[in-house]
Amino acid sequence: MRAALGQFNAVVGDLAGNAEKMCEIYAQAVRSDVDLLVFPELAVCGYPPEDLLHKKHFLTDCSLTLDKLAADCPKKTMIVGFAESYQENNYNSAAVLQDGRISKIYRKAQLPNYGVFDERRYFLPGNEPVVINVGGLNVAVTICADIWEMEWLINFLRDAGQIQMILNISASPFHIGKIKKRQEIVSRCAKEFNCAVAYCNLVGGQDELIFDGRSMFADSNGKIIAKARAFDEDLLIADIIPTTDGTVQVEPMQTAAPQPGDLADEIYQALVLGTRDYVGKNGFTKVLLGLSGGIDSSVTAAIAVAALSAENVVGLTMPSKFNSPETIGDAQKLARNLGIEFLTIPIEPILEQFDEALKTVRGWNSEGIAYENLQARIRGSILMSLSNQFGSMVLTTGNKSETAVGYATLYGDTAGGFAVIKDVPKTMVYTLAEHINKISGRQIIPAAVLTRPPSAELKPDQKDSDSLPDYDLLDKILKGYVEEDKSAQQLVELGLSRDVVLRVIRMVDRNEYKRRQSPPGVRITPKAFGKDRRLPITNRYGSCKQ
Amino acid sequence: MRAALGQFNAVVGDLAGNAEKMCEIYAQAVRSDVDLLVFPELAVCGYPPEDLLHKKHFLTDCSLTLDKLAADCPKKTMIVGFAESYQENNYNSAAVLQDGRISKIYRKAQLPNYGVFDERRYFLPGNEPVVINVGGLNVAVTICADIWEMEWLINFLRDAGQIQMILNISASPFHIGKIKKRQEIVSRCAKEFNCAVAYCNLVGGQDELIFDGRSMFADSNGKIIAKARAFDEDLLIADIIPTTDGTVQVEPMQTAAPQPGDLADEIYQALVLGTRDYVGKNGFTKVLLGLSGGIDSSVTAAIAVAALSAENVVGLTMPSKFNSPETIGDAQKLARNLGIEFLTIPIEPILEQFDEALKTVRGWNSEGIAYENLQARIRGSILMSLSNQFGSMVLTTGNKSETAVGYATLYGDTAGGFAVIKDVPKTMVYTLAEHINKISGRQIIPAAVLTRPPSAELKPDQKDSDSLPDYDLLDKILKGYVEEDKSAQQLVELGLSRDVVLRVIRMVDRNEYKRRQSPPGVRITPKAFGKDRRLPITNRYGSCKQ
Repeated sequence: MRAALGQFNAVVGDLAGNAEKMCEIYAQAVRSDVDLLVFPELAVCGYPPEDLLHKKHFLTDCSLTLDKLAADCPKKTMIVGFAESYQENNYNSAAVLQDGRISKIYRKAQLPNYGVFDERRYFLPGNEPVVINVGGLNVAVTICADIWEMEWLINFLRDAGQIQMILNISASPFHIGKIKKRQEIVSRCAKEFNCAVAYCNLVGGQDELIFDGRSMFADSNGKIIAKARAFDEDLLIADIIPTTDGTVQVEPMQTAAPQPGDLADEIYQALVLGTRDYVGKNGFTKVLLGLSGGIDSSVTAAIAVAALSAENVVGLTMPSKFNSPETIGDAQKLARNLGIEFLTIPIEPILEQFDEALKTVRGWNSEGIAYENLQARIRGSILMSLSNQFGSMVLTTGNKSETAVGYATLYGDTAGGFAVIKDVPKTMVYTLAEHINKISGRQIIPAAVLTRPPSAELKPDQKDSDSLPDYDLLDKILKGYVEEDKSAQQLVELGLSRDVVLRVIRMVDRNEYKRRQSPPGVRITPKAFGKDRRLPITNRYGSCKQ
Repeated sequence: MRAALGQFNAVVGDLAGNAEKMCEIYAQAVRSDVDLLVFPELAVCGYPPEDLLHKKHFLTDCSLTLDKLAADCPKKTMIVGFAESYQENNYNSAAVLQDGRISKIYRKAQLPNYGVFDERRYFLPGNEPVVINVGGLNVAVTICADIWEMEWLINFLRDAGQIQMILNISASPFHIGKIKKRQEIVSRCAKEFNCAVAYCNLVGGQDELIFDGRSMFADSNGKIIAKARAFDEDLLIADIIPTTDGTVQVEPMQTAAPQPGDLADEIYQALVLGTRDYVGKNGFTKVLLGLSGGIDSSVTAAIAVAALSAENVVGLTMPSKFNSPETIGDAQKLARNLGIEFLTIPIEPILEQFDEALKTVRGWNSEGIAYENLQARIRGSILMSLSNQFGSMVLTTGNKSETAVGYATLYGDTAGGFAVIKDVPKTMVYTLAEHINKISGRQIIPAAVLTRPPSAELKPDQKDSDSLPDYDLLDKILKGYVEEDKSAQQLVELGLSRDVVLRVIRMVDRNEYKRRQSPPGVRITPKAFGKDRRLPITNRYGSCKQ
């Protein structure tokens, strides 16, 4: 039996467009003579459709789109994920399309309602297994989390008879370390059921989430035999062959797709895809960003160029009296290296006029933090003015470390449509910079940018280290507090300084309001600031007590 | 049996503070010789604690706080809502405190996971009824949604024996029309079980949510006998008296608390409480807002004064060449009427410098929309500069109608900490203005503000009606589309113009990104922009197809 996994980039809400893509892949699958063509979870409407699922007409449209797709693709058995309204309830379902119509429907039973997932908000769980026969093989259909609850699954499929393949359609978002877990799950599933597993994952960026593809087949020994591309569309085809000794073999039809080289490469590809899709799927072509000559904006610009190509990226330097010729020069050098348009708009005259105006209020301080923030807000206003005038999206350049502690000016450097590296800790930003230079085969990001101590350059001789602990230490505390929900006490017990820990935690807690008004950005860690981490702004749970 | 409902303003995360308040109320209840003292759902930690519940030490602290509370209040039976970690799972629980310790625990069975609620994210449902005997009466303990599922409840309590009172501890957020539903539920519950119902609700503002109190007792005929204050703390005490004919009577110990006079009054009180609590609970005393001489900023300022008193509110006019002497005069008049400080900072010189700088970029248009937005951003930057300098929170003044269609400048008029009227449709803003003048007994908001056609005053002779349909029509469409999830087709069938409907829907859909970066504000409708309505930014579900 020949099976094909149609790992494609579905767009949320674009029912007709997604169906059209599936038709194209179907034509390809027909040419490759497959028996079974599989698409990801909620392929018809994209994942996650969120509260679109509260619109009755949306569910009706999903159903109409599915019917048409079935009629348009009558020659092969297809498995298509869709949002289903059935007897006044909604389900996350997989339709089995055969002979031009829907022959069976499997309804997802395990509905994740943690982390970034809210499936209990939308769906009722199904409770009936669906096993189909394709090309002489018994294939059990499952959806995403269903195979992550192995003990439940064993019980669920107990009376399903002999199964040669478990099929799983997923929309499993990327984060660091996720692929390893997924492979373990797929492998364990194959071994438990002594059958092949076909795992078809979504690919593409959707707001903060990145779906990384990497669909795969495992044989009944639990060995991953074939893996589709990472962060790109692919059609992975394999023959599923039951043997007389009771095992099920998998024979791939293609040579192995290249996989990310290392962690930095994986993150880099995630950021590139996330940026390309957010910008493109929202109808933008060009982006605009401030280049400070620092590491964050340099890495963001390089990712933007990789995502959208140099002619669609514009860099802007907006110097004040506090910017050194070195950083301005490095910004220019970076722009030249990337081959992007580079504009210079000095902010000094505007800053002076603001200062004049604000001086009329008694108590205004032309050297304080308000004055520092003002510079960032002038820059934000200039970027947004150009965005409004020319229709390019502004990319912000803040990393996860400064987003966590609120080392940013709201409506200043946080102003923009998409925050490319908002989930990348500062220490990882350096690794990415090195990776970018490595894969370019030359110093795209100037050496000085990598070695100069980070500074916001909003007052004379300012350094990040004046306000923050060293980034190595900061990132350690943040990982424990933000990503692992550790208490101050637990962090101190790991050998971290109590004072620093308490200070950092206080900064993280107090800046929830800033994060709430910041743009979305690519999620790469198991817990990003976003749907993953829903904390109240009004919150007196004190750092001292933790 | 004498029961008291301790409707108090819990602060999320302030475990010690909440416990202290409960101790004070306990002392009061002891003086009133009550048998049973009841506190709201999750009274120990406030509602909703959101992802604080993912911190193990938070749950430990909740438990320690509860133990101490029990020890501190040994003389009466108390019911206290708390977040419970039990056998590796979390529950939304009600502790029965007696003789200085926890004698029983009821675990909420119905966990809402829709609208603003995410309880399945945090809790497992309980499945055992708890009936306690207090002063000779059998009292069944329930939590919030438990009594909203009547058929389930009847079954759940089937074997619980004769019950004289059902107790319900709630954190039921306010929206227009909610109190009516609540009374129906309480009344129906009393009739179904032929017993008294004691309903204790939370009060206070928590980020976007307002808890309106209005705790109540119903007798076994389903009649609401006593109702606590709205939007304020209260201790409602009544005697619960079973009679020989099998009914249960309720005799209140106080005269009836005053209730909101009408819809405008109810909304007004919600906005005042929400503003007071967001500002105060986040550690601010003073607020700052731009006064344009328009209706939105006028109403916002009046609410701020009611919430925080005149000396804590500063109004700012920031005129450009497009502002008329009439609107500037009205802003000044309003400030005088409210007795607040009034500052004037003209933006013209700053605008000119921005324009000079931006003109260096080919294609910049000194008369276009970018130039209009720039004026709003200069104002936002001035407000934020003063906020940073003086530590006052900026209130934004956008209403629900313009928030819906994106008729606002991101980082301009949306810049601030709290959006007081973000869930108030424009047509209701007028009603509120009239209400404010009525309760003040004089024209606080100048007559001209109520009659002048609304304008953003960002270019010569601009009117809102140049860009938007009449607000009467707009608000009708928005109610249908946003609050009721109707399709374009359904709205057209209600007799609304197809072109206008499609144009409005397109505006709503396209401006999700702006709303996502806007500050929180008071929720007053059944579906606000916020946790109620979670739509993807990247979304191609087209208005044309709806």
